[in-house]
Amino acid sequence: MALNSNSLQMFQSIKRDTRDFINIDPLQTAGLLTDAAKEALIEWGDGYSVCDYCSGALDLVKKPPIQEFVHKALPEFLGTDEARVMNGARESKFAVMHSLASDAAADAAAAAGGKNNYVIMDAWAHYSSKVAAERAGLDVVLTQKPEREIMPEDFLEAIENGIEQYGKKPLLTLLTYPDGSYGNLADVKKIAAISHEFEIPVLLNGAYAVGRMPINAKEFGVDYIVGSGHKSMSACGPVGVLGVVGEERAEQLFRKSVHNKVKEVELLGCTSRGAPIMTLMASFPDVVERTQPENWAKEVETARHFIQRLEETGKFKLFGQNPHNHDLMFFEAPGFFNISERAKRGRYFLYDELKDKKIHGIKPGLTKNFKMSTYGLGRDKVDFIADSFIDILKKYDEI
Amino acid sequence: MALNSNSLQMFQSIKRDTRDFINIDPLQTAGLLTDAAKEALIEWGDGYSVCDYCSGALDLVKKPPIQEFVHKALPEFLGTDEARVMNGARESKFAVMHSLASDAAADAAAAAGGKNNYVIMDAWAHYSSKVAAERAGLDVVLTQKPEREIMPEDFLEAIENGIEQYGKKPLLTLLTYPDGSYGNLADVKKIAAISHEFEIPVLLNGAYAVGRMPINAKEFGVDYIVGSGHKSMSACGPVGVLGVVGEERAEQLFRKSVHNKVKEVELLGCTSRGAPIMTLMASFPDVVERTQPENWAKEVETARHFIQRLEETGKFKLFGQNPHNHDLMFFEAPGFFNISERAKRGRYFLYDELKDKKIHGIKPGLTKNFKMSTYGLGRDKVDFIADSFIDILKKYDEI
Repeated sequence: MALNSNSLQMFQSIKRDTRDFINIDPLQTAGLLTDAAKEALIEWGDGYSVCDYCSGALDLVKKPPIQEFVHKALPEFLGTDEARVMNGARESKFAVMHSLASDAAADAAAAAGGKNNYVIMDAWAHYSSKVAAERAGLDVVLTQKPEREIMPEDFLEAIENGIEQYGKKPLLTLLTYPDGSYGNLADVKKIAAISHEFEIPVLLNGAYAVGRMPINAKEFGVDYIVGSGHKSMSACGPVGVLGVVGEERAEQLFRKSVHNKVKEVELLGCTSRGAPIMTLMASFPDVVERTQPENWAKEVETARHFIQRLEETGKFKLFGQNPHNHDLMFFEAPGFFNISERAKRGRYFLYDELKDKKIHGIKPGLTKNFKMSTYGLGRDKVDFIADSFIDILKKYDEI
Repeated sequence: MALNSNSLQMFQSIKRDTRDFINIDPLQTAGLLTDAAKEALIEWGDGYSVCDYCSGALDLVKKPPIQEFVHKALPEFLGTDEARVMNGARESKFAVMHSLASDAAADAAAAAGGKNNYVIMDAWAHYSSKVAAERAGLDVVLTQKPEREIMPEDFLEAIENGIEQYGKKPLLTLLTYPDGSYGNLADVKKIAAISHEFEIPVLLNGAYAVGRMPINAKEFGVDYIVGSGHKSMSACGPVGVLGVVGEERAEQLFRKSVHNKVKEVELLGCTSRGAPIMTLMASFPDVVERTQPENWAKEVETARHFIQRLEETGKFKLFGQNPHNHDLMFFEAPGFFNISERAKRGRYFLYDELKDKKIHGIKPGLTKNFKMSTYGLGRDKVDFIADSFIDILKKYDEI
């Protein structure tokens, strides 16, 4: 393409037409900026702004108080001994796996002709967990696909299968909490305990938990925890958090470079070196507040209320745990599917109908099955969404 | 720390006291947002905003026109066959090195007991290049430290030394263009040609070039080029660009996951999934304009004018190429050093004096040697800085 002022206009003044919609995409509901974060974004927007007073490493910047945030507030919040701000949850998972894999490389080389190293993951692990393992040169062994939810026994079985197949323990057990499809919360304590019986460290992928609900790595008994700033902590992406339990693990994960004594190898020196970390910090007080047990209980209550309203129609079936324990939910909607078979725009009818009602977040073309989230919407908006779903069914004579 | 509303207030409403200063830190001068980028930042600030219309991969998002930007505008701008938006220049360098190292791993394993793989870099390579190599499990062989500037022969010598020491070719040659200390522009074409004689691919670290000055990977004859959005493309960090010449190299670097056919392994699926990519795009038309040869020539002229004004005092000596060819410059300042020996605040006097004049960017405590940049400041501000330097010398009777 020719790079001239005419052709390049397309990259400027682009409006986000969903900005004033009710967004029910689970990716988006807990990523909306707080007012404090919006203020931080404008104040700190320029390039490398946070580096004005850097004396060598991002996590040690005192002004703005990144050091206080990373080394005091964040470990307290995550229930870990150490924490860092990363470019995202996936980058955090890769850092952990890459670090463990590098550590294991010497052993692997010694056992010439031996099998690859591997990671155990729940059957519903996010693609980015698998890609992180692949990038770190690790195989992936999944628990079996369950009917309804992943049970601790599934992990036991997967670990035993892995050991049989590979002739050695996995480097890591990874649990997605909740999974990103159905919003199920597995029994993390039991799964961690099973894993620890084999002396396998446990990583909790809390991309949909950290910042939404109460969570504490030590109470859960996990060794690593990752969270997503843009998904669940009302921060401008890309940004995420990584916590570690145990000083020895932290030292290995955050090992310093041989080339530069203050720079951490797995972080490539510094990670989120711009406004995103400032938005994460600015939203943090609100995030702490909303994850208090009583506030999370209200979110769950709202989610259950919404589910109940849909179930009452007889036209929606919730997958996974029911009663449900999270704002992320997955429905089968035979009524919507029926309509898609005869509507003018076919399976895109639902997207169009919801657009008319200024509701965004169900992927265009989906009708029979879809996931969504009610996080942070409150009772009124949630009722409006339920009403809208029902109105659409009525409009097409499905109820 | 206790996480309550009192203790957490410190993370909100933090002002950036340097925001209306003249910033001469080379990290900052070309990272200031354009008006279009500020607008984009506010519009797209929420969490994962750009993912509202994603159909599987960030670089394929059509609305906003990320696909057009990544697959058409950016390769044209960089002079490459393919390009991607990354989390930064360092993440781009790691992706290239990790990809090459993974490819070479099989060979390495075969040659049991053999030496490690390695990368050749210029003596002034940025720490993040070295840390990227370290994270990828690669050794680093540097060219010898030169008196004034790095010459093509230094690379020839380093390659020959490397081959002798390791018994094999390096995986990559990396040139920092310009280096981040002195702002020297090495003879990239000759260095690339030397490297190619040995069939070694070349990576150009253009963190201080891409977005500031005209650059074209194919014209230079390099295989990979990386740039920094927050450093030199007026984008909100963390964000960077990565370009590749040659479809075979691109295919290897951007290989797809075995777990997910649209996700690229070295990108962990998606990279800059938030407002930073929108600011990069919004500033891009201005960035294209400012990197036109005639506009860059004006920047160089301004830099030379500033250097001349300081040199005329007899109290400043420029290191590196002179006449200078870049806005990043490094001075020896014996006058400032003399003052630091007797000033009340010692070596912090210069920082304080400049602060009074609302000039920021020379690290607190530096007086004898410092680097700075005149990028984008224009003749008036540059004269103001020169006047200020001279005023300070006069105030302390150094001239």
